[in-house]
Amino acid sequence: MNDKQLLMIPGPTPIPQRVLHTLGNAAVGHRTPGFSAIIKEVTGKLKQVYKTENDLFILTSSGTGAMEAAVSNFINPGDKVLVMENGNFAERWIKINKKFGADVQAVSGEWGAQSDPAALKALIDADAGKEIKAVFVTQNETSTGMVNDIQALRAACGDHPAIFIVDAISGMAVSELKVDEWKLDIVVSGSQKAFMLPPGLAFISVSEKAWAANAQCTNPRFYFDLQAAKKNFDEKSTTPYTPAASLIVGLQESLKMMEEEGLENIYQRHAWYRDMVRAAAKALKLELLAEDKGASSAVTAIKKPGEIDVKQITKIMREKYSVIIAAGQGKMEKSIFRIGHLGYVSETDILAVIACLEMTLKELGWDVQLGTGVAAVQAMIMKGRD
Amino acid sequence: MNDKQLLMIPGPTPIPQRVLHTLGNAAVGHRTPGFSAIIKEVTGKLKQVYKTENDLFILTSSGTGAMEAAVSNFINPGDKVLVMENGNFAERWIKINKKFGADVQAVSGEWGAQSDPAALKALIDADAGKEIKAVFVTQNETSTGMVNDIQALRAACGDHPAIFIVDAISGMAVSELKVDEWKLDIVVSGSQKAFMLPPGLAFISVSEKAWAANAQCTNPRFYFDLQAAKKNFDEKSTTPYTPAASLIVGLQESLKMMEEEGLENIYQRHAWYRDMVRAAAKALKLELLAEDKGASSAVTAIKKPGEIDVKQITKIMREKYSVIIAAGQGKMEKSIFRIGHLGYVSETDILAVIACLEMTLKELGWDVQLGTGVAAVQAMIMKGRD
Repeated sequence: MNDKQLLMIPGPTPIPQRVLHTLGNAAVGHRTPGFSAIIKEVTGKLKQVYKTENDLFILTSSGTGAMEAAVSNFINPGDKVLVMENGNFAERWIKINKKFGADVQAVSGEWGAQSDPAALKALIDADAGKEIKAVFVTQNETSTGMVNDIQALRAACGDHPAIFIVDAISGMAVSELKVDEWKLDIVVSGSQKAFMLPPGLAFISVSEKAWAANAQCTNPRFYFDLQAAKKNFDEKSTTPYTPAASLIVGLQESLKMMEEEGLENIYQRHAWYRDMVRAAAKALKLELLAEDKGASSAVTAIKKPGEIDVKQITKIMREKYSVIIAAGQGKMEKSIFRIGHLGYVSETDILAVIACLEMTLKELGWDVQLGTGVAAVQAMIMKGRD
Repeated sequence: MNDKQLLMIPGPTPIPQRVLHTLGNAAVGHRTPGFSAIIKEVTGKLKQVYKTENDLFILTSSGTGAMEAAVSNFINPGDKVLVMENGNFAERWIKINKKFGADVQAVSGEWGAQSDPAALKALIDADAGKEIKAVFVTQNETSTGMVNDIQALRAACGDHPAIFIVDAISGMAVSELKVDEWKLDIVVSGSQKAFMLPPGLAFISVSEKAWAANAQCTNPRFYFDLQAAKKNFDEKSTTPYTPAASLIVGLQESLKMMEEEGLENIYQRHAWYRDMVRAAAKALKLELLAEDKGASSAVTAIKKPGEIDVKQITKIMREKYSVIIAAGQGKMEKSIFRIGHLGYVSETDILAVIACLEMTLKELGWDVQLGTGVAAVQAMIMKGRD
């Protein structure tokens, strides 16, 4: 049966039945009091996930749209910005900033390794004239399966006036992120990751410090103008332009599910999947890209096994077993493959993806004793979590 | 039963069961060959609806996002542009253009009346230096229930080099629009109108003439960068950033339905609803905003009946009868109310909305003999179309 696909990419994630049913609801009048109440409710619950009392807005776009909003609303042409770069999505911060005329300094690190807070601190400390306007970081780097230490990176900036901007698209509600406690000024995320929805919504939080920068910002923007978003939300619990209403109704349901499970449990469950996939990979003598410290709970990147073409791995997984995993991205397109384990994923999904990976690698000539990786996962399950 | 709402606003429209079922499908891997095939198929069918062989792209945003793309990809700061203004959405063209630094000349007309092709021709003919870079028009003005004569407006521009840009968000597949035959350079539309989907997708077509202007355009853009859209579509039948995949799967189904019905039938069906609502309004001694010539097939605007507050009309319709209609917008917020009749609407929907409107107006003190408006519609149905 090829119809039932097992989706193990780092987003979009599988969607719970409870949420799917809501997506199939009838059309919604997006300017009714009832829909404003939904927007208000989900915005409040999103703030709980973000651990923030900052403003938070729902945008109808992919996560990249919210990344653009994080630049176009706050950065002026000529502004000096730092980007902590160690992956394909961190590179996107560089590209967007350049499009909007920023003077970008990339602080480049090895792909798969964490960004170095000390390197950031050195640049911040050296900036006597306080010329750095913003620091852009990536929480979970989807392209490499690495999660940055956001708390340490933020601490490295101390009291410097630069606004601190985080891409948490694939990391939000996967790994801990404390927006207010850590003083993160702008944080973006997206519906198709841990929120267990189809793609089409993005979320962005904005601190008071960021609003002060916004007041000075001249870059042109309309669709992603956050002042319009704030005015419409504050006055009428609505959005400036027609929102993706069916997805917002779905979000209402998925946030209920997340509330029932509890954020700490969600973090632990994702870390558990990470540990399982890494244990299986090691049992199969595969090499992991990220070290244990900094290993992502959302996605695991595995290095190209010997001379095996990673595109062959993803192709056989998809065509023979209906399991969707991902090749690499950007400069690592051919040197790694990636197994996503975020969102609506279960232990049985992990067992299945590892079993199919074993068969695929064996077919491609890798020295695999079938069942070895699965056994590593089974041992963990039978022992139980912590 | 308050749960079953009758949605009679000018978008989002009701959604067919056939489409709702597809929205509830399982998550989709958006970078798989299967999904690229869907993108290719729906893009081809959208071009048939547009009657164009121009490039056409699917954006994940509301229609306003595509309007921004139509400005930010083609207009430079200081460029002289004309906007034919006679409603709230035409005003949006002015606002976006101003945000992106254009030198905007608004050609303002009465709200509810068609834009005057002769006024446009006079300005075009007077532009000996060919300084006008673009002309922005609105096909169907959602805020007033007026449809412009796009063919005549385009003809008024003759061989002038200005690119001709059309907001067809609420008019596409409601009233005839021939992108290639009429030489319309950029045309935007959105999923939640005649395409019978939830909001979240926008479509934009781009002519060769428009691409030439794009090559000169310096305004900053990333998420809505159409060169990135073209490169990804041409090379891999994909989108630069994660698309709203569930809506694209829904679009595949709704385009099939539209193909089965046939575009000419769809146009005629919408004109038929327009005629019904207008006949009923006249029978109820209500005053229509738009003249018969220029009356929209998507939405009918009715003037405030005497001293009755239009917000009371929409409130009673919603709270007592679960029928959602719209008040006015912009400067006409309080002076009209609007009944949408586009997308997945049936004759029985028209009968029901008119019946509820009669009861509502009677309650509010309007001199109504119950059944009068309904009878006007019934007479048309019994006589039959054409």
